[in-house]
Amino acid sequence: MANNKRVVLIGAGNVATHLGIGLQKAGWEIAQVYSRTSASASDLASRLEVPFVTSIKDVCTDADIYLVMVKDAALQELIPSVVKSREKALFVHTAGSMPMDVWKDNARRYGVLYPMQTFSKQRAVDFASVSFFVEASGAEELSMLKSLALSLSPKVYEATSAQRTYLHMAAVFACNFANHMYALSAYLLEKQGLPFDAMLPLIDETARKVHTLRPVEAQTGPAVREDANVMNKHLDMLADEPELKNIYEMISKSIITQNS
Amino acid sequence: MANNKRVVLIGAGNVATHLGIGLQKAGWEIAQVYSRTSASASDLASRLEVPFVTSIKDVCTDADIYLVMVKDAALQELIPSVVKSREKALFVHTAGSMPMDVWKDNARRYGVLYPMQTFSKQRAVDFASVSFFVEASGAEELSMLKSLALSLSPKVYEATSAQRTYLHMAAVFACNFANHMYALSAYLLEKQGLPFDAMLPLIDETARKVHTLRPVEAQTGPAVREDANVMNKHLDMLADEPELKNIYEMISKSIITQNS
Repeated sequence: MANNKRVVLIGAGNVATHLGIGLQKAGWEIAQVYSRTSASASDLASRLEVPFVTSIKDVCTDADIYLVMVKDAALQELIPSVVKSREKALFVHTAGSMPMDVWKDNARRYGVLYPMQTFSKQRAVDFASVSFFVEASGAEELSMLKSLALSLSPKVYEATSAQRTYLHMAAVFACNFANHMYALSAYLLEKQGLPFDAMLPLIDETARKVHTLRPVEAQTGPAVREDANVMNKHLDMLADEPELKNIYEMISKSIITQNS
Repeated sequence: MANNKRVVLIGAGNVATHLGIGLQKAGWEIAQVYSRTSASASDLASRLEVPFVTSIKDVCTDADIYLVMVKDAALQELIPSVVKSREKALFVHTAGSMPMDVWKDNARRYGVLYPMQTFSKQRAVDFASVSFFVEASGAEELSMLKSLALSLSPKVYEATSAQRTYLHMAAVFACNFANHMYALSAYLLEKQGLPFDAMLPLIDETARKVHTLRPVEAQTGPAVREDANVMNKHLDMLADEPELKNIYEMISKSIITQNS
């Protein structure tokens, strides 16, 4: 798909890397990469074969879309200098938990493009299966954001800032916290010289099950059986790991609460 | 595969249901089902088209293998009456965290067959991708257990009782606790009228990632970025859910600890 819109990437982290690569493949012209970290900027710019800058004042002023993909704390600070001298462009951030209104005092045309996915630099993303949530300051901006998102995935939904905040928090549980459970499992196995690979069929089936059962129906294990025997044995085994022991206890309690 | 060994199922829960069906399909003769809960016993027995009993003294005495799949707390209690008058048979339990030695004061030939998987009655199990861990009182018993397991899956490993306990605890984290993270995510979305289905691509990718990255490398989200802004916003949103708020805080801390 070809189009004549020029996109600048502000940020060069995981999200910027994957979205930048995805958008370029989809036919968008990536004009430039900005990151205050020179190594990151240069890395992504060379993958895309485009120029990079490390100071906002050097960012070109004639692009159509400025896609801002930085830490939430940096976003607010960056907004005035990103918008200045570029007032005609469309300004977009990708953060799940930042309201669209962060733009309103500075920009005229703005929006949010939130890809709900876990991006790691080391791993390619299949955008076709990623859900995108969009919100914009007006009809024209919304249509531009939708065409941006639809060039990557058929799963594009409108969501308000409030809805997006909840989607993001829910994603922290379903993805980030679930992954940490894998990480604790790996840690416990490594301590015993046992291979984490043995867990993979179980991890896959746990994920597959919730395609057809509600997670609360899919729950198995000692907590949902209220098998105090097993839980106490595990807590004893975690005696030298107070943080993990607390997590074990608290999650088990929460499982019992939710299922009773 | 045909063979002339007769197997009795002691228990009619999720594990018994799936193993019973799997073993029968693999050519083993299921002689009888026992459960003290008449409805469960009758349910499983009718699926297998075999007789059932609800009292241990009515369990046949001439089977070759007694496969005991009951709650850990019930197992110890049940052992003497299961073994009595059946001393020549092979006695097997399937519990990850029960040592093989629970049999030693009563039985002569015994072992453990631990399928590391999450079994829900509503869902068929693809045994070919399940890891089985076996342990037995002697070489002959071990070979019998291996042939039982190998008739279901190529992934059959020997593991000591101590190793199995750690595998089981690690599975509680990677499977039961990960699923509870899905369940909390679903709960938070439902409260806002948002569909849990939107999380499925994310859940799938989170599971797929740890096939190629170590979980600790695959970690993303506000905690690993130490993005206090986002974490505080989420904690505020959980103000009316103290249990979830504690879980959010504790897991985030644990992610930061593990990654620093």
